[in-house]
Amino acid sequence: MIATRLTRALGIDHPILSAPMAGVAGGALAAAVSHGGGLGLIGGGYGDPDWLATQLEAAGNAPVGIGFITWKLAERPQVLEVALARTPRAVFLSFGDPMPFASAIAAAGAELICQVQTLDHARRALAAGAGIIVAQGGEAGGHGARRATLTLVPELADLLAREAPETLLVAAGGIADGRGLAAALMLGADGVLCGTRFWAAAEALRPPGHLEQALAATGDATIQTSAVDAARGLDWPAPYRIRVLANEFTDRWHDRVDVLREDAAARADWQAALAEGRTDTASAIVGEGIGLVHDAPPARAILDQMVAQARTLLDGGWQR
Amino acid sequence: MIATRLTRALGIDHPILSAPMAGVAGGALAAAVSHGGGLGLIGGGYGDPDWLATQLEAAGNAPVGIGFITWKLAERPQVLEVALARTPRAVFLSFGDPMPFASAIAAAGAELICQVQTLDHARRALAAGAGIIVAQGGEAGGHGARRATLTLVPELADLLAREAPETLLVAAGGIADGRGLAAALMLGADGVLCGTRFWAAAEALRPPGHLEQALAATGDATIQTSAVDAARGLDWPAPYRIRVLANEFTDRWHDRVDVLREDAAARADWQAALAEGRTDTASAIVGEGIGLVHDAPPARAILDQMVAQARTLLDGGWQR
Repeated sequence: MIATRLTRALGIDHPILSAPMAGVAGGALAAAVSHGGGLGLIGGGYGDPDWLATQLEAAGNAPVGIGFITWKLAERPQVLEVALARTPRAVFLSFGDPMPFASAIAAAGAELICQVQTLDHARRALAAGAGIIVAQGGEAGGHGARRATLTLVPELADLLAREAPETLLVAAGGIADGRGLAAALMLGADGVLCGTRFWAAAEALRPPGHLEQALAATGDATIQTSAVDAARGLDWPAPYRIRVLANEFTDRWHDRVDVLREDAAARADWQAALAEGRTDTASAIVGEGIGLVHDAPPARAILDQMVAQARTLLDGGWQR
Repeated sequence: MIATRLTRALGIDHPILSAPMAGVAGGALAAAVSHGGGLGLIGGGYGDPDWLATQLEAAGNAPVGIGFITWKLAERPQVLEVALARTPRAVFLSFGDPMPFASAIAAAGAELICQVQTLDHARRALAAGAGIIVAQGGEAGGHGARRATLTLVPELADLLAREAPETLLVAAGGIADGRGLAAALMLGADGVLCGTRFWAAAEALRPPGHLEQALAATGDATIQTSAVDAARGLDWPAPYRIRVLANEFTDRWHDRVDVLREDAAARADWQAALAEGRTDTASAIVGEGIGLVHDAPPARAILDQMVAQARTLLDGGWQR
């Protein structure tokens, strides 16, 4: 057991949230994390209401949260209604201004969790009334910005201590085992949010071939790029890029994103590769923490192992 | 007191090394760190033997180490003789293959410390017989690569546990207070190496205006770029770039480094700005940890504060 302000506030056993990874974090994964003692978040992603409804169904009665890409939610605000109708435990917003959605989320009785990548983002989250702020470093898989978790977390802890001491702080980006959890607590976080580690959970929804590619990779093998968004026709705003496993596709296009946006054949081939499991073209969306991930057990086992390892370290096991 | 394998191996009180920052980490800073209970490293930098001799003199009888930029040392190997003649406690090599220098360093009785940025670098350091490996994340000030400290340290700890369990591991990049020190120990490091925090020490040699600029900055204000190396006419090899405070100069040149290399007037203006303290052109060379640095006390006070804060956290003070 590791009790923190976060476990008390959310009524959970472990100070661990699973990231709402678009397409990957479905209802089964989120429910498994919540049943395992953490808080699972379904990835609302780009706002497909049918997919979300299906995944909410799959989560059953588990107390889960739902995450959205904020700038995309602004284009499709109606999908928030689908989420709130289910009375989720929490709504998680990242990559944009949460303010337009804050009052509806509060009215539905859901906790507002805002993921931030800079100090300015954090102030915007406080203005929107976020009860929990997730400080995300750029070593994270999927979308992120440039700050590193190791410096962003304590700097935001200092900001919250001065300006909003009741607001909870969660560390994200690069945390894939109990060492990362224990380190985050030392940095001033009340808990962690893990993507890559749960991306490899048995319950996650992964494209074909991606798990095999990722389990063979080290943390040196990832790249933060805009090429994959260009391939998908997604206009992600600055400063966000997506971290994936580097491959032939990113080697070819990382420095020529503008050309790729106009190359319909290359984009179509990327989509085909995703469906067919050709990982030299469409690679796994994971963070630097993949170098710490060597298996794909059920989410509950991941939670138990992380907490046990962190508990040992916190009790003095760091000494050698 | 925080005793680790590193303090026992080096016979020091605190598991803290000061980074051999080129031009900034002179003999006075290195001596103050060693007298304060850590291990101070003089920044041998680009290999000016006269500057190094002066700084070795300034260090007096303090047991200090000396750091070099390895690819530059390969061009000027004779400066290593200047260093070894002083019988330094350690020689620190980063940014290149340490192998050509390893036997001379061992013959002089100095500890070989190799800073690495990837797993392959670490294997190269082991091949050269390094007793201490410094895992440096890209959030560091000055030169670095892309991996983040939070993931690189535990991944290298696993590598060393498998392949070289007697080799010590030090974390670098983004560690500027006792929270970072405690976090590094949780990640599996035997100690830390700090640049930015000692960059702001009273004993450091800083260009005019840089301290004022840096103390007013947050961790969001830095950028890793090749523009500053282009301005200085330095041909740093990939994957290394330099992290500095972003300013008008980096805004203008970061994406046009090739043009800058040919622009003699812009390069001359950068040099003049460095001497004159015009920080909108030549900015402070600090890392993301600058957002955790708010004063410029003597090195001894920095050490005492870091250790006291980490000790409190390790004894359970992380609980809120």
